[in-house]
Amino acid sequence: MFEALETGKSIKGSDFAKLRDALRPRLIQAQLALARANYSVIMVIAGFDGAGKGALVHRINEWMDPRRIDTNAFWQHSDEEQSRPRYWRYWRHMPPKGQIGIMMGSWYQACGYDGISESLSSEELALELQEIEAFERMLTDDGTLLIKVWLHVSRDRQNMQLREEAPLKMQNPRVPADPDAWWDKYPEALEVSAQLITATDSSHSPWHLVEANNPNYRDITVAQIIVDAMTGHAARLAADTPPEQPALVDHRKGQPTVLDNVDLSQALDRDEYKIKLRKHQDKLQDLAWDLNAQQRSVIAVFEGWDAAGKGSAIRRVTQAIDPRLYKLVQYAAPSDEERAQHYLWRFWRNLQRDGRSTLFDRSWYGRVLVERVEGFARQDEWKRAYNEINMFEKQLVDHGNIVVKFWIHISPDEQLARFKARENEPHKHYKITDEDWRNREKWEDYALAVEDMVAHTSTHHAPWTLVAGNNKLWARIDILKTLCSAIKKELKG
Amino acid sequence: MFEALETGKSIKGSDFAKLRDALRPRLIQAQLALARANYSVIMVIAGFDGAGKGALVHRINEWMDPRRIDTNAFWQHSDEEQSRPRYWRYWRHMPPKGQIGIMMGSWYQACGYDGISESLSSEELALELQEIEAFERMLTDDGTLLIKVWLHVSRDRQNMQLREEAPLKMQNPRVPADPDAWWDKYPEALEVSAQLITATDSSHSPWHLVEANNPNYRDITVAQIIVDAMTGHAARLAADTPPEQPALVDHRKGQPTVLDNVDLSQALDRDEYKIKLRKHQDKLQDLAWDLNAQQRSVIAVFEGWDAAGKGSAIRRVTQAIDPRLYKLVQYAAPSDEERAQHYLWRFWRNLQRDGRSTLFDRSWYGRVLVERVEGFARQDEWKRAYNEINMFEKQLVDHGNIVVKFWIHISPDEQLARFKARENEPHKHYKITDEDWRNREKWEDYALAVEDMVAHTSTHHAPWTLVAGNNKLWARIDILKTLCSAIKKELKG
Repeated sequence: MFEALETGKSIKGSDFAKLRDALRPRLIQAQLALARANYSVIMVIAGFDGAGKGALVHRINEWMDPRRIDTNAFWQHSDEEQSRPRYWRYWRHMPPKGQIGIMMGSWYQACGYDGISESLSSEELALELQEIEAFERMLTDDGTLLIKVWLHVSRDRQNMQLREEAPLKMQNPRVPADPDAWWDKYPEALEVSAQLITATDSSHSPWHLVEANNPNYRDITVAQIIVDAMTGHAARLAADTPPEQPALVDHRKGQPTVLDNVDLSQALDRDEYKIKLRKHQDKLQDLAWDLNAQQRSVIAVFEGWDAAGKGSAIRRVTQAIDPRLYKLVQYAAPSDEERAQHYLWRFWRNLQRDGRSTLFDRSWYGRVLVERVEGFARQDEWKRAYNEINMFEKQLVDHGNIVVKFWIHISPDEQLARFKARENEPHKHYKITDEDWRNREKWEDYALAVEDMVAHTSTHHAPWTLVAGNNKLWARIDILKTLCSAIKKELKG
Repeated sequence: MFEALETGKSIKGSDFAKLRDALRPRLIQAQLALARANYSVIMVIAGFDGAGKGALVHRINEWMDPRRIDTNAFWQHSDEEQSRPRYWRYWRHMPPKGQIGIMMGSWYQACGYDGISESLSSEELALELQEIEAFERMLTDDGTLLIKVWLHVSRDRQNMQLREEAPLKMQNPRVPADPDAWWDKYPEALEVSAQLITATDSSHSPWHLVEANNPNYRDITVAQIIVDAMTGHAARLAADTPPEQPALVDHRKGQPTVLDNVDLSQALDRDEYKIKLRKHQDKLQDLAWDLNAQQRSVIAVFEGWDAAGKGSAIRRVTQAIDPRLYKLVQYAAPSDEERAQHYLWRFWRNLQRDGRSTLFDRSWYGRVLVERVEGFARQDEWKRAYNEINMFEKQLVDHGNIVVKFWIHISPDEQLARFKARENEPHKHYKITDEDWRNREKWEDYALAVEDMVAHTSTHHAPWTLVAGNNKLWARIDILKTLCSAIKKELKG
């Protein structure tokens, strides 16, 4: 692979100036077009130490308008980063639509170093690369233009660079500080790099392999790659008609759904309820402290029909937990910063640190529920969301989070009764809106969306619990019980 | 003081239910009104451990709509928090306009504990309280409603509570875990609390002192405080006509300004420039690593006339610094999340960790420059901004940041020449807009705003440097030199 990148390509000074002067206005033009576009650009600048990544990034910032470029170096990870799922550190630095994010030491760096040092086996590395591939696909599916550049330098050149470079007083701890160590590691580095490139050289985000021994050649080549990628992406999007959305014919209409399996007659009387509430809240209180002591977190998702009793059930949970140990986040319309990002971004941004749980009152499942039914997301968007969501929850679980998901189910009659009651109670009146009445008319569509959601996303590591909600007392205890047992199963000792 | 809070006030169960049912709709109403209002509410819930702060916060969340309440517990500070100026941890959790933020263990907690343990002297505590007072004034000046509640419990009651409470498996390390230790500390705690309350019991954010031995009385009393404060604030704002803005007559017009003291004839030829550029960039490169080794950060502010060469000067700085060691942030129109916050919020949010510098291309000085001249800020707003800004920069410096501020000055003729040149260069054309031409017409207003800015905010710890910018080469070297010497002066060894 790399022999094709050690050919001696170079550009001399006078040609360089000419080429640069031709490219700069085109870079700026591409960037101006991007500013008005509905997608972001992510540049991954990868390659060996000593390949000139820093110098190249300087160049890009020099030739383009740095106002709309955010350069991120993932390097010394803070405890806030380490105490959250691995991709959190990248999500928090995602460029918004219309802007460019440069990623140095991106998601490739850690696994690359770990591959070279053999702290990851070849199989483990392959799995990580698969995860990267899926992550990048999710971004590009969302319209993001991913420009991945691999800078290659020869063994001699790298050695020279590392010796020449201004004293690197602080190094990434995974990088051997000594140029000689790099010299020795070079063959392994080549091998791991080849694995890394081939595993992630996909149609949606191909690698651009660049011979980087000569800085002039490197900079001109990458600038040309950027111009071509950005103008090509813009042209493709302009030409693309949005995919045809065939009206879905759903033969399940009128058939029972998974929700009909929920026994809505289950109920508790108030005396039983009081005893059980006390018991389970006490248990949850202790478990929340145990979680903190073991630095584990619960990610709890609360979904359900309007007026299903989500709010009051959540309150029975939060009553039990010290406010220092959880964050409750509720989702309504996204802000403009959120709209300028992938739909999962606004959930990632609220994940709490290890030892502190996050309760989501409505969640990423909006994508396959309200956004699907109301047509806010296209068919291709919500259909691929099942996979994106499973991947997201897998990352949470892999990090050590305990994912618990509740759908609170009630019957249409029960909902009607509650709507009417709310309209009559002065301090609950605000809870009922025209939208609630409109949603009610689409009951069957929502029920089928719930069924699909359960079918696709009730996984071993992040199962759904369908809660019988006609009796609120039953529902609250069921939720507390399920939470406690999910936590208990995961805690040590 | 506290003897007035040990009187035996209490509410029995049946009265409690009646009072609660009367208060809940009013709480909800106040919250609904807030959702449409242009300010935020911050509730500070303070008092001794064992006073029932947690239980009260549960109550507030139960009686109000938790969707628009964000409960924050400042407790275990992450390294990201510790490696930034102290107030950063609060700024990052400020509620947006229309919402309520509850602060537990707020800015009062650390200094309270430190006062009790005597790790702060009485004078040091007084200074911290003065800083708190100024911080709160800044928030309330911005329209924020600050509701500060102090829960008082007697020594016996506290002791009982601490013994009874569910096992606190994890404690704030500053809090004695043992109830007996609290018993012993109680008199000192009273004394420090009294100092804390009196020093910060201001007209703009008074303390509400609540006898908290009886939970029913505590909760009803606080609910009433919240209703009164929220409805009162809304009524006051509705009645207030915005302060009369007398047209300012500025007798300085036609007089020389501080900018006329800048010798614009200073210049470098290209050969000299090249040598000096290399020299100072090399020095800066090393200094940036030294800063990182000593975990110090530069906060550099770049302001100047349109076309003064800000961008190209910044690039000469960033070229010298490893991209892992700085973040360049540029400011244009605020996002809606930013507009829903105090104007300083969007600068606080971008502060980098210790060891990483932040370069601000335009800054908080917009408040006293463009916002003043264009009338985006009222007179009272921009006039008090000098003090707010000095306070902000003082916090940066107190934390160990090195604050360096540049105004790049050019003559009107030089600006005109550059505007014309930009219009003729294809890859610079985008840099010039109608707004630039309009701003030019207000040259004198801007010059006087700059003069006032320098007069008010060129402090010993954060001085302004006025850079002669007619010769770009001179300006770049002057900036690099100033930066290097400011860093050098601060570094150890």
